[in-house]
Amino acid sequence: MSAATIHLGLVQTHADPTQAANLARTLALIEQAADEGAEVVCTQELFLSPYFCQTEDDTHFALAETIPGPTTDALAAVAKARGIVIVASLFERRAPGLFHNTAIVLDADGSLAGRYRKMHIPDDPRFYEKYYFTPGDLGFGAVDTQKGRIGVLICWDQWYPEAARLTAMAGAEIIVYPTAIGTWSGELELQPAQHDAWHTVQRSHAITNGVFVAAVNRIGTEDELEFWGRSFVAAPDGSILAAADTQESVLVVACERAQIDRAREGWPFLRDRRIDAYGDLSKRWRDDA
Amino acid sequence: MSAATIHLGLVQTHADPTQAANLARTLALIEQAADEGAEVVCTQELFLSPYFCQTEDDTHFALAETIPGPTTDALAAVAKARGIVIVASLFERRAPGLFHNTAIVLDADGSLAGRYRKMHIPDDPRFYEKYYFTPGDLGFGAVDTQKGRIGVLICWDQWYPEAARLTAMAGAEIIVYPTAIGTWSGELELQPAQHDAWHTVQRSHAITNGVFVAAVNRIGTEDELEFWGRSFVAAPDGSILAAADTQESVLVVACERAQIDRAREGWPFLRDRRIDAYGDLSKRWRDDA
Repeated sequence: MSAATIHLGLVQTHADPTQAANLARTLALIEQAADEGAEVVCTQELFLSPYFCQTEDDTHFALAETIPGPTTDALAAVAKARGIVIVASLFERRAPGLFHNTAIVLDADGSLAGRYRKMHIPDDPRFYEKYYFTPGDLGFGAVDTQKGRIGVLICWDQWYPEAARLTAMAGAEIIVYPTAIGTWSGELELQPAQHDAWHTVQRSHAITNGVFVAAVNRIGTEDELEFWGRSFVAAPDGSILAAADTQESVLVVACERAQIDRAREGWPFLRDRRIDAYGDLSKRWRDDA
Repeated sequence: MSAATIHLGLVQTHADPTQAANLARTLALIEQAADEGAEVVCTQELFLSPYFCQTEDDTHFALAETIPGPTTDALAAVAKARGIVIVASLFERRAPGLFHNTAIVLDADGSLAGRYRKMHIPDDPRFYEKYYFTPGDLGFGAVDTQKGRIGVLICWDQWYPEAARLTAMAGAEIIVYPTAIGTWSGELELQPAQHDAWHTVQRSHAITNGVFVAAVNRIGTEDELEFWGRSFVAAPDGSILAAADTQESVLVVACERAQIDRAREGWPFLRDRRIDAYGDLSKRWRDDA
């Protein structure tokens, strides 16, 4: 039988130059989250390094590692020792010349319960992800763990209602979004509107799907990007359960499973989807409509 | 060549007991919107009558009429006289015993350019729409008019990202939502959270699709429902261009077409949709995922 509540932990931090420093600090923050009662802990996107996608530089491929690999092992040891689930965002080396932006889900016994490979890959000035990451080929799903059924999506995915819907439809109780979003130092005046849009769309995923949504973002200024931090957890009715500011933060949030039922029964959106009429969502554009 | 701007008008009003009074007042408010420069004017949902779906009562079927029919004709005369597009929400009698919740789009020459039959039909205490309305069978689309390409969705549809996406993919520049949303007098303490969710999800449709979104809601207390009014127009970046309060209101809002391009080029979500992986959106649930 499932517990009434899942205690979700979010680790929001900066990036130091070395992977060793980032791994050590993130492991310590995960331990802190566990100390505070977290049962499922999620890292920010690509927590092992600065956000290297600001430039296209083939030396950065050396940052990638296999899954499983040394970082998976280090995280799994903590998951097992503390009996917690860990969702961690890694730069996956799948084969020579084939890389993904991947999140792993480690179960509370340290086993690798699943992985998600980022499906929607951005490419904008200073976010040159299409250079580094092959789009995911595992689709959208959810991972059963000892602590709950967890859906994982990553950063740019958060702008796609299709991704949230498919993840919720796979039975996710919580959708976590490891994230690296910030504003270019040349247009900081856009930050409030950008942040508001980001926050609005993710809350909307919570509401339309009746699911907990958590975004875990990095902090700090790296070259030309100022990352926002402001990680948060939204309840299935869209209300904000907890939110960080721009400082290093560990959030531990009680996600009451009954809220999912209450939200979905109060406004029964899932009852009425017109699945007979959604086929064109698999088109690029409806030029003929 | 399209004009740089579409001037959108929203008519938010109460309902009197008689259809004649509601038609006369709504026509006057449409004229007022035209006086103020509106080129496309939208009514609230089922503007001809009080929100009769609070009870299941077969005498209410007498409120329905054919399309075209007398109300279509009356609206078309104003559309033609003023050279404006009118989007009007009607209770459509399609055949004896077959009814829809339908919005018509009248072009600026008074012709019937298109119609949309509400696809997602709610049914909650005091919103017994499944009793009255057969779910729409025309799918999601957009209607070309002399003033712009207009998408129409209706009330409960606004909770479905699929509907907004498919309408935007059909080339809609503006998605209008005739609406009748309010709070039961027995749980008025829920109104702020309900309103916030409603507002959040529709702004999210604007952002994720890069399209103007307008909601046109009724005002006033009818039996056990307090309608919110608070009609609004969101820009393609999600910012609010105009919003009414709870009073009778005519909003006329300049929708600059270039904002669509700017929003979609600034954050190019449409570029990266994973249409190879969206097929399960046509499932009821992903029990196997």
